[in-house]
Amino acid sequence: MISEDRLIERIVSHNGARSLSRSTLRLGVGDDAAVLASRPNTEWVVSCDAFLEGVHFLADTHVADSIGYKALARATSDLAAMGARPRFFLLTLALPIGRVGKWLDDFLGGLGRASRRFGMTLVGGDTTRNPTIFISMTVIGDITPGRAVTRSGARPGDLIYVTGVLGAAQFGLLVLTNRLRKPIHRHFRGRRSLLRAHLYPAIQVEWGAWLARHRLASAMIDVSDGLSTDLSRLCEASGVGARIWADQIPCVKIPHGKTVEVPGLSPLELALNGGEDYELLFTISPRNLKRLRRARRFSELAQIGEVRSGGQLTLVQKDGTVRPLVAGGWDPFGSK
Amino acid sequence: MISEDRLIERIVSHNGARSLSRSTLRLGVGDDAAVLASRPNTEWVVSCDAFLEGVHFLADTHVADSIGYKALARATSDLAAMGARPRFFLLTLALPIGRVGKWLDDFLGGLGRASRRFGMTLVGGDTTRNPTIFISMTVIGDITPGRAVTRSGARPGDLIYVTGVLGAAQFGLLVLTNRLRKPIHRHFRGRRSLLRAHLYPAIQVEWGAWLARHRLASAMIDVSDGLSTDLSRLCEASGVGARIWADQIPCVKIPHGKTVEVPGLSPLELALNGGEDYELLFTISPRNLKRLRRARRFSELAQIGEVRSGGQLTLVQKDGTVRPLVAGGWDPFGSK
Repeated sequence: MISEDRLIERIVSHNGARSLSRSTLRLGVGDDAAVLASRPNTEWVVSCDAFLEGVHFLADTHVADSIGYKALARATSDLAAMGARPRFFLLTLALPIGRVGKWLDDFLGGLGRASRRFGMTLVGGDTTRNPTIFISMTVIGDITPGRAVTRSGARPGDLIYVTGVLGAAQFGLLVLTNRLRKPIHRHFRGRRSLLRAHLYPAIQVEWGAWLARHRLASAMIDVSDGLSTDLSRLCEASGVGARIWADQIPCVKIPHGKTVEVPGLSPLELALNGGEDYELLFTISPRNLKRLRRARRFSELAQIGEVRSGGQLTLVQKDGTVRPLVAGGWDPFGSK
Repeated sequence: MISEDRLIERIVSHNGARSLSRSTLRLGVGDDAAVLASRPNTEWVVSCDAFLEGVHFLADTHVADSIGYKALARATSDLAAMGARPRFFLLTLALPIGRVGKWLDDFLGGLGRASRRFGMTLVGGDTTRNPTIFISMTVIGDITPGRAVTRSGARPGDLIYVTGVLGAAQFGLLVLTNRLRKPIHRHFRGRRSLLRAHLYPAIQVEWGAWLARHRLASAMIDVSDGLSTDLSRLCEASGVGARIWADQIPCVKIPHGKTVEVPGLSPLELALNGGEDYELLFTISPRNLKRLRRARRFSELAQIGEVRSGGQLTLVQKDGTVRPLVAGGWDPFGSK
């Protein structure tokens, strides 16, 4: 029989969190709460994110290592979208008794790798049993006062940019769950990167922090529920509309002949409505464009449209016709 | 069909959280993350707590209003145990579709009352669907630097105190679930307070803050999993043992003839091993006793024992014999 206290010790040992070397962490895991010192010229950025068996992942399909990595990565993406530097996290973990052995070790392995990659320290949490796996992650970052990039600063005339490639994570999920009409050969070299996009998404922490530090983005959001949905959220918060061009969207490449099972699910639709890409979508005033172009990794960005007045979102299709862009991404309470 | 964004609006409207009037809250609900300003001479205290259907409550037995209240109260107790002042909270809420109507309104009603009582503002969260109700609460408080009371400061010779009465919450649960051999008459005047102890526990925020402010407690923990378990946690963290006296423990009073169904479950055992009292257990050096006695509400405290060197925990029984005190409280991974 395992006790909750011993379980916490195992979680902590995987995350090396008893060290108080970081000057702002006064008290870490092991007491009723963690204590963080205030630092002059710093604001704290806080967010939380749920990751549930049967809703966000399938315990028989997704390896525990990926679940541990992705649980923290997903949450950290919200800090990236503010331009904050990730610092601390708290883990709420509910598990069936049968998962406290190897499954938990693998989960903690993936989680530990993510925490090292993002430079984060576990400072607290709660564990309990439950018939299904339930994870809630609270993440805390810091940022120079006034530099956090909100969703609400986009202005008509601003240009719309996105990092990376969209639709790869959703396509990776279809590969993983064998929902392609023709399966992709195991040795196809693109297969691995599609699976990685779904299982171990890269989080654009550096881009977010760089844009915030240089005050270049007027508004920013991470693309977690699909471009169409997250762009509409940004526009609603800013009180603006947008026009985007289909042929400028950096879509995932689908190998020849590998159409997906859902009828008509093209690369464009994967990009617009597929979820979990965790790329950053941001707006920028044209007068800041010259400074943006100086970014060392500018080639990773794509300009996909422009902010317009009024609340309308439109898509310029490849044939030049314009259609309304409807938020069609992931909604946990939606009918999809 | 409800959307996640509309659901968030309802949660926010119940918690009045869009106001940024509190000077440290730079950005509240509605963006990717909340932003909190650092304040000089302040440390942040952070904790999280899970509250699950079927594990911590039964959706058919516990009214939604109580679930909302208690979800925040439980978590806030961890801040009280550090001596912190509650300030902000983030809510992760997973719900079956069938619960997003009246059930959610009632839940938000109870939650809103708790947030007003404790002076807390909702600053973020995450919502999703799930076959069962899952709540994870992250709470943030503040405190003067260096004043947080940990579990690890108890020294041999310190006296052990507890606030309030122990065992009432567990007894209230037995009343609520009709597990008493003889049910308590609906109009018995003690019934209501027993149910209240279980459904709407008072949280000792004022006591915790007062003890921290006056630097009186050498160690402190909240009694959430039973006195025996939480005392052993405090002693383990402090590297000490303890002796407590059965006849000094402020036990819940059981009406004459109302023995509970579980054989031998006496008021003392409810106090030692019953959970969810959320009273504060603290240690204090004898030289600080005079100052403690000056507390306006000193009569609410009971001195139940003393800290000893070595790791042993013992209980002096009413007949004067001494027996080892075994941690017998709630453990989610235990066999109880």
